Amino acid sequence: MGTSAAGFDVQGVNSERIAQRLEELARFGRSEASGGGWFRGFGTEAELRAREWLRDLWHKVLGLEVRMDTAANLWGTMPGREALPALVLGSHHDTVPNGGQFDGALGLVLATEVVQRLVEEGYRLRHPVQVVSFTAEEPNPFQVSTLGSRAAAGVLRVEDVRKAVHIRTGVSLRDALQAAGGDLDRLDRARLDPAGVSAYLECHIEQGKRLWSRGMPLGVVTAITGIYREEVVVEGEANHAGTTLMADRRDALCAAAELVLGFEEAVVRGGGEEIVGTIGQLEVRPNAPNIVPGCVSLILEVRSPDREGTAKVLRAFDECVRRVEAGRRVQVRRVRLLDQEASWMDPAVIGALERAAAELGEPYMLLSSMAGHDATHMARITRAGMLFVPSVGGKSHCPEEESRMEDIAKAGDALLRALLILDEELDAR
Amino acid sequence: MGTSAAGFDVQGVNSERIAQRLEELARFGRSEASGGGWFRGFGTEAELRAREWLRDLWHKVLGLEVRMDTAANLWGTMPGREALPALVLGSHHDTVPNGGQFDGALGLVLATEVVQRLVEEGYRLRHPVQVVSFTAEEPNPFQVSTLGSRAAAGVLRVEDVRKAVHIRTGVSLRDALQAAGGDLDRLDRARLDPAGVSAYLECHIEQGKRLWSRGMPLGVVTAITGIYREEVVVEGEANHAGTTLMADRRDALCAAAELVLGFEEAVVRGGGEEIVGTIGQLEVRPNAPNIVPGCVSLILEVRSPDREGTAKVLRAFDECVRRVEAGRRVQVRRVRLLDQEASWMDPAVIGALERAAAELGEPYMLLSSMAGHDATHMARITRAGMLFVPSVGGKSHCPEEESRMEDIAKAGDALLRALLILDEELDAR
Repeated sequence: MGTSAAGFDVQGVNSERIAQRLEELARFGRSEASGGGWFRGFGTEAELRAREWLRDLWHKVLGLEVRMDTAANLWGTMPGREALPALVLGSHHDTVPNGGQFDGALGLVLATEVVQRLVEEGYRLRHPVQVVSFTAEEPNPFQVSTLGSRAAAGVLRVEDVRKAVHIRTGVSLRDALQAAGGDLDRLDRARLDPAGVSAYLECHIEQGKRLWSRGMPLGVVTAITGIYREEVVVEGEANHAGTTLMADRRDALCAAAELVLGFEEAVVRGGGEEIVGTIGQLEVRPNAPNIVPGCVSLILEVRSPDREGTAKVLRAFDECVRRVEAGRRVQVRRVRLLDQEASWMDPAVIGALERAAAELGEPYMLLSSMAGHDATHMARITRAGMLFVPSVGGKSHCPEEESRMEDIAKAGDALLRALLILDEELDAR
Repeated sequence: MGTSAAGFDVQGVNSERIAQRLEELARFGRSEASGGGWFRGFGTEAELRAREWLRDLWHKVLGLEVRMDTAANLWGTMPGREALPALVLGSHHDTVPNGGQFDGALGLVLATEVVQRLVEEGYRLRHPVQVVSFTAEEPNPFQVSTLGSRAAAGVLRVEDVRKAVHIRTGVSLRDALQAAGGDLDRLDRARLDPAGVSAYLECHIEQGKRLWSRGMPLGVVTAITGIYREEVVVEGEANHAGTTLMADRRDALCAAAELVLGFEEAVVRGGGEEIVGTIGQLEVRPNAPNIVPGCVSLILEVRSPDREGTAKVLRAFDECVRRVEAGRRVQVRRVRLLDQEASWMDPAVIGALERAAAELGEPYMLLSSMAGHDATHMARITRAGMLFVPSVGGKSHCPEEESRMEDIAKAGDALLRALLILDEELDAR
């Protein structure tokens, strides 16, 4: 790598060190079983040990000032030359159960590498640079995902989570957060002052196939998808599976099957590849082989980078619901569970990532993120942007999750270069 | 009622006494909650108390010799004039959870009434007459239904149930059977000697709508439906609900929805009103709102009075499975769970019931039973027959289950008359 846009001559990232760090972090929570994945769920022993490893790395190896906030988010800070708000690089170190080696981990290792390169060169940016690992990004048994970034963005309040407990063990979120170094009763203190942050930049695996199937090494995220969820309850009539003639049935499962297919059709017709819809959860009652189903409840989800995409799918589904209610003599009740708007990434950050890729001579693709990320919430209080690395075969949240080292090294170089560009461009004198 | 076919002058049944007995039996297991139903599941306190009530009724009021076999079936015997095998009248006193007042109970109360009329008249039949209440007819948490009649027919062996336990409490079937007065380790002794039984006659509510919707007071059963059950497992691919494009999905739930509707169509096209098919149980894995379903398992059931009906439905479903496998890139595995042939009722018993109805001047309908009954198993070792009473609105296995007293009295008269006809006709000198 030659002279940066900032006029600073810095070598590219050290890909051997990146590979080694990914291996080191992968020691925590690796399943013993052959072919097994990783599990560093929030509050687990492995997660707490990964936290310690990260703290030591940032403090002892990089020499950063390290602190933990009341949401147990871990922050490392490298001071800047000027009194400016910080440029923040972040991701998360927790995983889903039986997850992969790269989700979250890659973003932290690359953020660490970028800062280490600056440290090695003895080069201070104008802005302070912060690295952050956000607490509990993944869905977890406390039923509070992106806990850390939501607290940092000030959109998660103490009242929302005061009573949260682990759904299986009954351990309170308060106790789990305390064990990690946080303080639930003072969660509000984790809220960032927007005046103290200039931009947030997150590198992450795509988790989908769009980059991989096009052979594209880099993805610059334009928006993080909106997520709409609703519960749909189909009320028919439970009845004896032998003595109830077919014509007399009000079978809630047959009605639900029509809704499942009608919803799928509404999604496929509704939009391009950036709109997806899923019915992932469905329960039958009473759920016995010899009883005609009386009630089915399901949760449907639509993800779209804009409101109109979601609205179009829902209009088509409304028609399907009316048709099924009339045709099957069932009642359908619907309750909206979530209607999270899409988050737009900041044009300055998008621009810096595009320019970095262009300067490196690497092709890139502009795309929306179909998964939620900590950046969703950081976008509410600062300029946010994301850089995606291709996922081999599009696989994620599974042991086979993989990204190639050559793509990872390119992402590291682009991240470093984009940081230097932002340092130059933002908060100009 | 005038002179019977047997030349015996007997008044009809006492409908006031029948109504009163139904009320007495309904004291056991009635829910305290308003609108609540009955629960006398096998082994419950209410079931054991109902058993005691029945024993006292048969022994103290009717003067029968009462015994319990090792399956805890309760038998009452009135001796005959000749050394002949017995005519048996039976049903069961257990109920499903939140069940109704008539399922099983009606058959026992009418059998009791018929014998009491003979006792009151001091009239002994040529054949001994036995009343029986079979143990655990209904599905129960020990997962052994029609326990008593299967043991009596010799088709349930000790090995089949030695390890059975209550799926929630863990109580062993052995202990539960002992508490009821049986002996699991000697279950084989409950097997009846076919030479000791001349015929089995059971009166039961229809539990469906065929009699009710035609205003028909009596139903003479020709066959008890065969039941075919299989487990169907649809293997797709679990994936991230955000990052997996619609075109890349192998959604097991969408595939299962096509199977549910394809199966329904196969059943409806496959036959008349005596063929029904149900998918009553369905489970989704991993069953989370944000994961594309990877696997769905379901249980399908076909009930038909003949093999060809079931085969026709399955042939149409086979085609549907092949279409879904190809169209959705899923694998479908199928495991047969049950293939119980239809039981044909005996022509002599059917004839006696038809003649009894005709002599009473009551219209009747020949029909198959779409539910299983103890008579299914008794038909393997003796001449068996069933008499159906209309269910108001076809409702059963629910608190609203009802049969009208005017229909019940007609059934009592027909049962008494058919018994006298069989006594005359069977085992002729």
